[in-house]
Amino acid sequence: MRIAKHHSASTLVRRDRDNVKVRDLYPTRVANRAEWIARAEPTVWGTAAAGPIDAQTLARHERVGYTIDQSLLTPDELGEYEAELTRLSSDPALAADDRVVRESGSGAVRSIFEVHRISDAVAELARKPQILGWARQLLGSDVYIHQSRVNYMPGFAGEGFYWHSDFETWHAEDGLPRPRAVSLSIALTHNYPYNGALMLIPGSHQHFVPCAGRTPDENFRSSLVRQQVGVPRAGDIEALATTYGIEQFTGAAGSALWFDANVMHGSSSNITPHPRSNIFLVFNSVENPPQAPFAAPRPRPSYIAARRAQAI
Amino acid sequence: MRIAKHHSASTLVRRDRDNVKVRDLYPTRVANRAEWIARAEPTVWGTAAAGPIDAQTLARHERVGYTIDQSLLTPDELGEYEAELTRLSSDPALAADDRVVRESGSGAVRSIFEVHRISDAVAELARKPQILGWARQLLGSDVYIHQSRVNYMPGFAGEGFYWHSDFETWHAEDGLPRPRAVSLSIALTHNYPYNGALMLIPGSHQHFVPCAGRTPDENFRSSLVRQQVGVPRAGDIEALATTYGIEQFTGAAGSALWFDANVMHGSSSNITPHPRSNIFLVFNSVENPPQAPFAAPRPRPSYIAARRAQAI
Repeated sequence: MRIAKHHSASTLVRRDRDNVKVRDLYPTRVANRAEWIARAEPTVWGTAAAGPIDAQTLARHERVGYTIDQSLLTPDELGEYEAELTRLSSDPALAADDRVVRESGSGAVRSIFEVHRISDAVAELARKPQILGWARQLLGSDVYIHQSRVNYMPGFAGEGFYWHSDFETWHAEDGLPRPRAVSLSIALTHNYPYNGALMLIPGSHQHFVPCAGRTPDENFRSSLVRQQVGVPRAGDIEALATTYGIEQFTGAAGSALWFDANVMHGSSSNITPHPRSNIFLVFNSVENPPQAPFAAPRPRPSYIAARRAQAI
Repeated sequence: MRIAKHHSASTLVRRDRDNVKVRDLYPTRVANRAEWIARAEPTVWGTAAAGPIDAQTLARHERVGYTIDQSLLTPDELGEYEAELTRLSSDPALAADDRVVRESGSGAVRSIFEVHRISDAVAELARKPQILGWARQLLGSDVYIHQSRVNYMPGFAGEGFYWHSDFETWHAEDGLPRPRAVSLSIALTHNYPYNGALMLIPGSHQHFVPCAGRTPDENFRSSLVRQQVGVPRAGDIEALATTYGIEQFTGAAGSALWFDANVMHGSSSNITPHPRSNIFLVFNSVENPPQAPFAAPRPRPSYIAARRAQAI
């Protein structure tokens, strides 16, 4: 493969706060340009025999790094979660809650973090066999929620999000040692090709792309709006897109995308009247617990990234 | 149709500079919200008998307001025009030419206006029967070029363009009395659904949507980057999109889009590595010559909007 030349096998050894040697398999937030690092781990850790995912779907997930479930929620369930999330977005008990991110101008709710701790309905959703069973099988172990949130993106005003690997941030700022984590994005609105639907580079999850720049303290306050560090170089995106192409996650409300922590993804702006809302759950393996951040002064708040495994 | 309530039949009478009464069929740049105006003219003025466009294609064009020609340019022609436009973008004779619009930072060429007067190759292209014949048939008369340009949109940095009707500006700022004009966008690069491909609302060309706001002098200096006036209200776009849906112009390099002057269209940002370049030719009927602007202090420069018919 022509992009093999990007790969570097180097890893760093550093001392943890307890003076324990920790190998950093995926150094990032580096001063100078660094070579890509070949992924050291599988993407699918479980077997088909364990169920519920069949062998063919698992093999494809391993290869491209994501799987689309076109009908995770029934229309009835969809209605229930929509109602629940509408209720949450105007709940007076959450008015001053740090976990609720609002539009600076209008005060409209844009995201609610740790929503599985705020809403029993969302916690129940995460425990559904079609969700928890999939997460356990993909990661080959018990799992917990590293991050959960609901996003409300209104029509006309969607700004999009530049290309990134979630794992790059979770490694640098949250201390996840390895990309043994998987995200589930459940669409609450229709994803058209033209209303900012997620773009993914299938196969990109096999390459860790180090990013330049030091992580400032409390980076999360701005990075959730627009990343300044943890941003891949244009040449890296071009090499990935040329090699693998670009796909979009489109589909009706109730469809869902499972995607590996290290898939390169992004979204364009949305000038259409069609809003985009989703429930976003990140499952991490209990065998991949967070360490001290690998490239940040201190961890992000626990409502953005859990510091320890908790039963779902 | 549920949007009929938007329609207003009112027109204004004003005095031209020669004190001749001129009816403004499409008042815009108004102080307050105004109702939509039902289009008074056909979209297709010629007959199938005149050729080269067949009756079915003409009927569809009348109904949806645009037609896609999936192979207007052969691969050989494509190569020729690419080479010509690369040459133009670095032509020292054009270095200080007002018609060349550059990126403020890098100085990279973004657009070249009146390109059919600058490049013999583009002038020849416009005279091809598959182009000039189509324009004449669609507009049912001889035609001339109201505007021509080539656009170079690099990957990663495409900002998109909010919803608008070209005719709204051509009427307000250039004085075209009626939407008897048609645009041809020839793709020089592949239009994917995700690299800022043009979105159109099929059927929207039947409704003139007045826009709020007075036109400042020399509005063109900023409006070609981002319109501040001539911008439809979100509610108008929502009503159109809900009624008619949204379509995208996608296809290989060499494909082309013919679209009516009054079709509502726009584009999202482009964060992909795939650039978008096109040649853009606007044909106006010689029976629809420009008057004084209907809603601007003075006409735009003639390299942006021709002030009189000239043989192509």
